[in-house]
Formats: sequence, C-alpha cells, structure tokens
Amino acid sequence: MSAAAPVSNVDPKLIAAAEAKVQARKRFEAVFPMLVEELTAYLVENKMPADAVEWYRRNLDYNTPGGKLNRGLSVVDTVDILLTTDGQGKKIRQLSEPEYLKAAILGWLVELLQAFFLVADDMMDASITRRGQPCYYRVEGINNIAINDSFMLEGAIYYLLKKHFRSEPYYVDLLELMHDVTFQTEIGQLIDLITAPEDHVDLSKFSLEKHHLIVVYKTAFYSFYLPVAMAMRMAGISDESQYKAALDILIPLGEYFQVQDDYLDCYGTPEMIGKIGTDILDNKCSWNINHALSVATPEQRAVLDANYGRKDAEAEAAVKEIFAAPNVDVAGAFHKYEAESYTRLNALIDALPEGQGALPDGTGGIKREVFRSFLAKVYKRSK
Amino acid sequence: MSAAAPVSNVDPKLIAAAEAKVQARKRFEAVFPMLVEELTAYLVENKMPADAVEWYRRNLDYNTPGGKLNRGLSVVDTVDILLTTDGQGKKIRQLSEPEYLKAAILGWLVELLQAFFLVADDMMDASITRRGQPCYYRVEGINNIAINDSFMLEGAIYYLLKKHFRSEPYYVDLLELMHDVTFQTEIGQLIDLITAPEDHVDLSKFSLEKHHLIVVYKTAFYSFYLPVAMAMRMAGISDESQYKAALDILIPLGEYFQVQDDYLDCYGTPEMIGKIGTDILDNKCSWNINHALSVATPEQRAVLDANYGRKDAEAEAAVKEIFAAPNVDVAGAFHKYEAESYTRLNALIDALPEGQGALPDGTGGIKREVFRSFLAKVYKRSK
Repeated sequence: MSAAAPVSNVDPKLIAAAEAKVQARKRFEAVFPMLVEELTAYLVENKMPADAVEWYRRNLDYNTPGGKLNRGLSVVDTVDILLTTDGQGKKIRQLSEPEYLKAAILGWLVELLQAFFLVADDMMDASITRRGQPCYYRVEGINNIAINDSFMLEGAIYYLLKKHFRSEPYYVDLLELMHDVTFQTEIGQLIDLITAPEDHVDLSKFSLEKHHLIVVYKTAFYSFYLPVAMAMRMAGISDESQYKAALDILIPLGEYFQVQDDYLDCYGTPEMIGKIGTDILDNKCSWNINHALSVATPEQRAVLDANYGRKDAEAEAAVKEIFAAPNVDVAGAFHKYEAESYTRLNALIDALPEGQGALPDGTGGIKREVFRSFLAKVYKRSK
Repeated sequence: MSAAAPVSNVDPKLIAAAEAKVQARKRFEAVFPMLVEELTAYLVENKMPADAVEWYRRNLDYNTPGGKLNRGLSVVDTVDILLTTDGQGKKIRQLSEPEYLKAAILGWLVELLQAFFLVADDMMDASITRRGQPCYYRVEGINNIAINDSFMLEGAIYYLLKKHFRSEPYYVDLLELMHDVTFQTEIGQLIDLITAPEDHVDLSKFSLEKHHLIVVYKTAFYSFYLPVAMAMRMAGISDESQYKAALDILIPLGEYFQVQDDYLDCYGTPEMIGKIGTDILDNKCSWNINHALSVATPEQRAVLDANYGRKDAEAEAAVKEIFAAPNVDVAGAFHKYEAESYTRLNALIDALPEGQGALPDGTGGIKREVFRSFLAKVYKRSK
C-alpha cells in the first residue's frame, strides 16, 4: 500500500512513520485469529460441546484484542531491534517470517496475561465499561462465570507456550518469567485492593512508598519488564546480568509511566485521554493524592480525609482545590517529577554497556535503542 | 507412639492401620506451615506491607488445609509405593527424610490447586459453607478480593515448584503437567457452568455423555491423574507410555468416584456424608438425573422438567419419586454401574505390565499396587 499524495504541509516522514505504525499493528493483529483457532481446536479435539467452544472463542475475542496493544507490540519491536540492527543501531536485515511469528505470539501472550488480569480487576472494582464496551462480566449471561473465563485466558498462555516454544532452549525461562511476573502482579493487585478499597476510605493507609510498591508490582513488571525480557529470551540472551540491567531501567520507566497515568486522570482533558477520570471519586491510591498527603497542612489533610473517595462532585471539587493550593501544587510537582525522571532514565540508559552487533551472533546484548524507544513513546505523552 | 491396649474386640491390626493413617496425615499436615513461611517470606523480602503479608497467610491457611487431603496424601502414598517396594509389593526400605519432604510438597501443590479452584467455584456457585466454615469470599471484608486471592493460591504452586524442584531433571515435566491439568479442569468447569447454571434449568442440555465430559475434565484429571503423575515424575519415570497407562486407569477410576459422589448426595444419610445433599435443588448435572433422563417416559420427563433445580422441598420430592420409579430406579442402576466399574477397573489393573523392583534402579515402573490402593479406598465407600 503506497502513501497518497500529502494533502497538507505535514512532513511526509511523519506521515510515513504513522503509516508504518498502522501497518505494524495490522500485521500483529492478524496473528491473533490463528491463536484463537489453535485454542478452540484443542477443545474441539477433546470433544467439547459446541456451546463451550463458542463460549471460549467469545471470551478470547472479547477480552484480548481491542486495547492499545502497546505491550504486545513492544515484544515485536524489541525482538526487531535485538535481531536486525548492528551495534550502531543500523538496520542490517529484516526479521524472517518465522521470527516475526514467534515474536508476535510472545506479544499476544503478554496481551492474554493482561486480559486475564483485566477481566478479574473489572469484577473486583465493579467497573462498568472497558475499551468502550461493557466490562466482560456485565455481558448478558456471563456474570461470575467470568472468573473461570479469566482462568482460561491465563490457561491459553501455557497452552500456546507449549505448542510453539517447547523445543526452544529458552522454553523453561519463558515459563518461569511468566510465572514470576504473574505472581508479582497479583501481589501488587492485593496491596492495591487492601490499601484502597472502593467502599472504605482510610488515607492513613496511603503513602508515596505504598504507591511505589503498587505501581511497580501491579503494573511495571508485566507492562514494561515482561515484554522486553521475553524478547531477550527469544533473541538468545542468557546472561542473567543483562536481565538485571533491563529490570533496573524498565521498572523506573514503568513507574514513571504510571505516575503520568495518574496525573492525566486528573489533569488530562477527556479529549486527550478518551475518558473522564474518576480516581478521586473511586478512592484510588494515585500519585496525586499521595503527593498531596505528603505536603498537606493538618487543615488541608482534614479536607482530604472528608472528601476523597466520596461519590459526589462537590467532594471531588474540594479535593481538586487542595491539589491546586500553592503549597501542594500537584501539577507543578508532577512536572518536576517528570523532568527528573527523564534525566535519570536517560542517565541509566547512557550507563548501559552497549551490546555489539545483531543477535544471535554471540556478540550481541541488550541495546540502548530498546530503552530509548520505550522512553520516547512514554515521555510527555498526553494519552 | 505405641497403641494403647485394645478396649474392644476390634481386630488390633485394624486399629494399627487406623492409627498409621492418622500419623501419616499428621506428618503430611506438619509440612504445610513451612510452605506458608516460605511464601510469606517472599512478600516480606520484597518489602510488602505487613497487612498484605497477613492477608496472604490467612488466604493460604483458610483455604488449603482443612479438607480430607486425599489428593495430597495420594502423592505421598504413590511415591512410597514406587520407591520403597519391590516387584512383589514387598517393602524393602523407608523413604528418606528428603524424599518424604519432596513428595509432601508435591502433595501440597495438588491441595493448593484444589484450593485455587474451590475458592472460585464457591463464588461462581454462590455457595454458603465449605468444610464446615463460611466460604472464603463470605468472610468479612473479603468479597470479590477472593478472586485475586484465588490467583495467589495458584501463584504459590509455581513459586514452590521453582524453589524446590528447579534443579530436578523432571522440573519442566512438572510444570507442564500442572499447566495441562489446570487447563483441563478449567474447561470442565466451563462445561459444567454453562450446562447447569444454578438459576436456569434446561434439562435438554444434560446427557450421560455431557456428565462424562464434566466429570473427567472437572474432577478426574486433577484428583486422580495429577497426584499419581507427579509421584511418577518424582520417581524418575520418564517413559511416556507409562503415563498413558496410568491415565487410562485413573480417569475411569475418577469417573467412578464422582458417580459415587453424585449417588451419595441423594442416597447417603447426612451422618454418612457429613452434609445434606442439594444437587436436585441446585440443578446439578449429576449422574442420577442423567441416568433418569436416559430412561424416563415422556410423562416422567415432564415431571423432571417441572421440578428439577427448583428451590423447594416438594419439587425435590417429586424428582426423588421419579428416581425411585421401577423403570428408572437410580439406586439399582448405580449398584449395577458400581459392580461393573469394579470389575472393569480390576481387569484394567490386571492387564498392566508389572514394574520390576523399586525405583529409581532403572528397572522399575508403575506398579499395580498404586492403582489397587486407589480402588480399595474408593470402592463401596459411604462418605
């Protein structure tokens, strides 16, 4: 497909980059139906009734695609950087079709893990909509069956790993990586659930330290570390110190991403973020409230205690007023945090020993470009 | 501990056997607190807040021990038979302490898997009590957090497998076994949930074939095949045909067990089975109703359609009347099924090639005694 003649003065390079991104997403999306066929075929082979097969197909289709797919695409992008560029970041070849397919399957496994968590999180948070449609458990006739359906999204991961990666030398590493990150995410979810239950406000349980723990465990491991670590396994990297180095950058990067997310929930416009933020109403243990708590006067603290997590607009406005007070200034503090994080993350990336050449020629290793491309995607985003 | 002088005319051998059973259970139970310490220590090492650590401890303690522990003890018993008896079933040594510990840990992994399923099943079935206490999700302050807690029971399995079995040559086999059986059980649960929802009776969805599928997938794989297959892995059996042979006996054995369970729900006294059966009221896809449907006249079928799965005692009595009708005779059909199953299972066991000698001397293999001891535990049980 060729680009049409530009109809505006936008830089053609930007148009080409945007089109490449759309194509990359389309190519990735095209892999998922094949995985659904493999998974449902297993049920058919085992003589499961047709209604069960169709139920599983709907579960997979409803919950897995449809998001931004950033995590899944990250696996593909990282494999691409690791296998096809030299030490100077110069592209020296294309991924072969089998290499692409393997990377895309790993990407979909991360998306399946996320689907498993989101189906359950929406039930635990009593959420109403997700990705512009009713939350899965709210679809007619599903209700609590969604619990078992979430299990079957996780089950899909190990079925597909066995089917496609069993003979790889890094198979057991992938299994352990998936187990470890799943458990870490569940621990993060537990802390979040008992720190910030929707129906019982107790700000004395909040702190920036607690926020840090929740964000790292509930989000950063599976969203940032997992996609890169899977790609590194596929690229043949076995040196454990390289995984440690990746972790040491990706966890703070993930934390920075989530703090942005928290900030945008309160300060992004609905046009920017595609939804109306409800973190204050929902008693969320967000970076904003934790920053405010860390600097509030006793009087301001009393206002926050009385108004945070209440389901009413006046209470929300009272909280926002404290957030805007000169001594609290959540927005200003965020911009300071953002600038500092950017500097710190760049320094961490600069300090990495650069992997030489493309993998798996035996001389390669993680490349700064992997992390630079992540940081570029995340820095100063507005959605 | 020596047996006290007999106070009745009961055969002293029976008393000794009963006491040995109590001791075996106590020894097995004593291993679990160590595992809880290991799991909670992981949270502590990762600087999780004390309330999260205590929450996880309560989750593990509330949901894992407290049942009959048959599945966990089966692993230990099977390892014992495989490693310490010769080809003639003669005991030639004792399990070493490290061997015992490994077998017991594997046994607790099966119990953790069951705990993961039961916490979720109770939510999906809206059950009230389990093992004489409120279902976990009904404990004050837990509610839907139980979904994530069920995930963390499953997470414990892979944490412990990695900690205790990572360096074993059969580590990846244990991982795959656990993944495969988990997925099979989830599939069985799905069929059960959509075939027999508690709130919508449709007997046209029932059949003996559907019952067979549900029982095999939802119960037999994890309750019968999994414990034996784990023990076989630990014993060093790597010949896949032996796993197939074990499966071919254990799946029908598990089916027979579940049919008994269904029968006892309706025909066992509360003193025998420790509860009041509610399968008819709850629209369960039980063997009893499926047998009845397979032979009922159109008039009897109409009575079943009108009365099965209704929450009232009169409707239940009407169903039981059909069950007792001479042409239906659920009890008689069960006794016939039981006798036939016993004959068939014994024939399957007799047809096994007998493993020679104790493992892992290289000459051993599965032993008939493994299956005979299972069958002896299950045949004509009344609870």
